[in-house]
Amino acid sequence: MANRIHRKILVMSGKGGVGKSSIAVNLAVWLSGQGRRVGLLDIDIHGPSIPKLLRLEGTRLTAIDEKIEPVLYNDSLKVMSIAFMLSNPNEAVIWRGPMKHNMIQQFCDGVAWGDLDDLVVDCPPGTGDEALSAVQVLGTIHGVVIVTTPQDLAVVDVRKCVTFCKQLSLPVLGIIENMAVHICSNCGHAEHIFGQGGAEKMAAQYEVPVLGSLPLQLAIREQADSGTPTVAADPESDNSKIYREIARKVGAKLALQAKNKSISFPNIVIQNT
Amino acid sequence: MANRIHRKILVMSGKGGVGKSSIAVNLAVWLSGQGRRVGLLDIDIHGPSIPKLLRLEGTRLTAIDEKIEPVLYNDSLKVMSIAFMLSNPNEAVIWRGPMKHNMIQQFCDGVAWGDLDDLVVDCPPGTGDEALSAVQVLGTIHGVVIVTTPQDLAVVDVRKCVTFCKQLSLPVLGIIENMAVHICSNCGHAEHIFGQGGAEKMAAQYEVPVLGSLPLQLAIREQADSGTPTVAADPESDNSKIYREIARKVGAKLALQAKNKSISFPNIVIQNT
Repeated sequence: MANRIHRKILVMSGKGGVGKSSIAVNLAVWLSGQGRRVGLLDIDIHGPSIPKLLRLEGTRLTAIDEKIEPVLYNDSLKVMSIAFMLSNPNEAVIWRGPMKHNMIQQFCDGVAWGDLDDLVVDCPPGTGDEALSAVQVLGTIHGVVIVTTPQDLAVVDVRKCVTFCKQLSLPVLGIIENMAVHICSNCGHAEHIFGQGGAEKMAAQYEVPVLGSLPLQLAIREQADSGTPTVAADPESDNSKIYREIARKVGAKLALQAKNKSISFPNIVIQNT
Repeated sequence: MANRIHRKILVMSGKGGVGKSSIAVNLAVWLSGQGRRVGLLDIDIHGPSIPKLLRLEGTRLTAIDEKIEPVLYNDSLKVMSIAFMLSNPNEAVIWRGPMKHNMIQQFCDGVAWGDLDDLVVDCPPGTGDEALSAVQVLGTIHGVVIVTTPQDLAVVDVRKCVTFCKQLSLPVLGIIENMAVHICSNCGHAEHIFGQGGAEKMAAQYEVPVLGSLPLQLAIREQADSGTPTVAADPESDNSKIYREIARKVGAKLALQAKNKSISFPNIVIQNT
């Protein structure tokens, strides 16, 4: 049976290490807690983080009727990642683009996602094979969420990401600024280690909204490393509220798009050279 | 005239955003200050950071005798990056692997590097096309320096990087731990935002040394964003001393390898599928 997926959302960033996977996980877990049927697809072939972030490492895959069963995080959240296929977590996937393309195709068409309200796709950094393959294989992308830190260096790369979306006619839903400020666990001093205002400046320039701003905080990193997403570990925390607000804005933008017939989703043809 | 390059050093990391480019830049600038003729090659096609880190953005390339002239940072440091070829810094390079391979080949054979003591190659994160192409095109790699943060999530990816080097018989010189500890600019409190001990644990496991450990510090980020490498901005600072020590260890390991005839550099054949 073919998969029916209502909304397909890409989480992208130009630069690595900005917390993209962590944000994808929290968004997916939050949406699944709202009674939605959610899929979370990790297409970072060389550095898959999703299984670790959800404490699903070591789970083995099964197949039914020639389709791979996604791994269940809970009743309403299905997860797929190349990490589930590695016999050893230290194994390196040393692949060129065409192999990665085949894998991403398999992740989309060869996985028994079933009926989903949302498919959240965690892309690796950059505007290369993985992102191109995802766009090509998924067909329609309903929205892209771009993650950045306020650092100048990151913002430069994220601009390239916005350009990528424009060139492929992908609707950018907005920007999430991560590691925006560090709060000292000793004196409470707020330090903008990675600078400030970068995302806002860029958002204004490209006329896309800032969906939310998350701090650089020891607790968040500890939750990530221990495989407990912030929205599940501490649903009433300030950070969880930020995620709730981000999910609300994403939902509102997608609903508006669906209503507005003037926004079309062109079929994209990409040369595989 | 063919380029003659004495030592070729790859700077890699499994995960993005760990400060790899910043470390490559400081290493190259430091070496060039020691009277060595140095090349710095940025093979991050989608997110080239080197020109910004050296305040060389907007420099246009010239060609002499059908070879591209590298950009001079100073008399003894030559730089090449795809960023020099973009008409606009926000331009996204939306390329699949084979195009990237051609570009990297051009960067090696089509650039008038001349005679170099050291070529430092800044790789993008991951174990895909760029890293494979660099290994293939450069032929002999004398050593790989791996950069990580102490975070569990980063260490997992860096392990894959070590596996990549082993599989391709590349000598790993050691690991550099970045963002090891944050010093609050208000109270001086040392906070291990990204955890601690990750690099040491991994280094012991794989029997490779930790070459040095750098802090997460506002000053370093500001130096990076303003295009002034730490070793040039403040040569007598503690952080510059750490770089000096890293460069010394790298040099010592390479010299030992060159002496030890038992270490060979096999010709690597990689399938371009």
